Amino acid sequence: MSATGSLVGIGVGPGDPDLITVKGLRALRAAPVLAYPAPESGESLARAIVAPHLNGGEAKTEIPIRMPMVAARFPAREVYDWAARAIGEHLDAGRDVACLCEGDPFFYGSFSFLFERMVERYPVRVIPGVSSLTACAAAAGAPLATRSDVLAVVPATLGEAELRTRLEAADAAAIIKVGRHLPKVRAVLDSLGLLAGAHYVERATMERERLLPLAELGDAAAPYFSMVLVHRRGFAWS
Amino acid sequence: MSATGSLVGIGVGPGDPDLITVKGLRALRAAPVLAYPAPESGESLARAIVAPHLNGGEAKTEIPIRMPMVAARFPAREVYDWAARAIGEHLDAGRDVACLCEGDPFFYGSFSFLFERMVERYPVRVIPGVSSLTACAAAAGAPLATRSDVLAVVPATLGEAELRTRLEAADAAAIIKVGRHLPKVRAVLDSLGLLAGAHYVERATMERERLLPLAELGDAAAPYFSMVLVHRRGFAWS
Repeated sequence: MSATGSLVGIGVGPGDPDLITVKGLRALRAAPVLAYPAPESGESLARAIVAPHLNGGEAKTEIPIRMPMVAARFPAREVYDWAARAIGEHLDAGRDVACLCEGDPFFYGSFSFLFERMVERYPVRVIPGVSSLTACAAAAGAPLATRSDVLAVVPATLGEAELRTRLEAADAAAIIKVGRHLPKVRAVLDSLGLLAGAHYVERATMERERLLPLAELGDAAAPYFSMVLVHRRGFAWS
Repeated sequence: MSATGSLVGIGVGPGDPDLITVKGLRALRAAPVLAYPAPESGESLARAIVAPHLNGGEAKTEIPIRMPMVAARFPAREVYDWAARAIGEHLDAGRDVACLCEGDPFFYGSFSFLFERMVERYPVRVIPGVSSLTACAAAAGAPLATRSDVLAVVPATLGEAELRTRLEAADAAAIIKVGRHLPKVRAVLDSLGLLAGAHYVERATMERERLLPLAELGDAAAPYFSMVLVHRRGFAWS
């Protein structure tokens, strides 16, 4: 009888394939089964990030975890229940499974939905990765936080009043999941006198990376992979 | 006449040598000059982290940035002024310099002191790294933040009242730079009803990594490389 396989969440980094860690790369290549989040149809970003590292390797079984594009149902419980069963079958058969995670698995990642379904029944570990947080700071060309700064990571999905309260309690902030919430984010920062120093970063370290002062950005919806960085002392973003 | 060299800050990750990125490793090996923070005497942690990757490579010029152990004078302005001059001489001579940074250069790193001295005069870029933040979450075995959580990174150096206010404004928190502030951190978390769920992580991913519920830790001073993770929904840390 074979031993149970183990599940490893690999942080593949923010987008540049070479921002995967040496440890993550080794685990990626060793795993016979790869799972990864994917849109309802089309390419998975996490899978695309590691693609250059898989060329010429041996064939792997792949499990795309495809999420229907219905915002109200995200995260779709049924999809993760299904993924947990599909991955569990491989683990039961003694095969290790690597789950590819954009950025870091435990930093606002959808991996947490898989993690909570697996951790009681199987060995699960995580290889941390470079998060979008520090990738955006590197792209913007200024420190995220220094010395005694309190840094807040604030999802733009919060209501306007709450967004304001949370930002007031921080010296530096990274506003994540900006997307369609861009006008609200801009209004809140403006009311706090922080708009002039706010920096917008889209697709950090990816091919179509885009950087500009938030004040210069139009009101079109930002993509999901965008972030606004702000600091009370007004770092000079490059 | 040779072109000016460029300065690259490399995030070498939290401690495990294999948590450096592929990109960071390449830049490390290519640089003819390495600078890194170091104690007044003895070994540099950043240098020790990359040591396994340098065996057998060609000799490099090394610039340890040695910081006197006088807490009141940290960061010692004179030391960084000196380091900026020493590094500047190499850049002027057309030699690239890599500065090794524990974790990520722009996440509470001493690299910011060097960065502010160099960025106006030389090409400077940063290769982001895995920060202690996500490394500690991976070690603790639970998500740092998910969904609409506001995550606060809070230095333990703040006063007790301010520490309380900042923690109240967050759903999840990472309290960094714990060191001798451990009794204060514990008292504040206790008063907020968060002590039972707080997790203590010391030297994440390093050889002497240590993990335990904060409530079980004695009152001896924690090392500088320690962090307390806490979440209002009380993740079950492993």
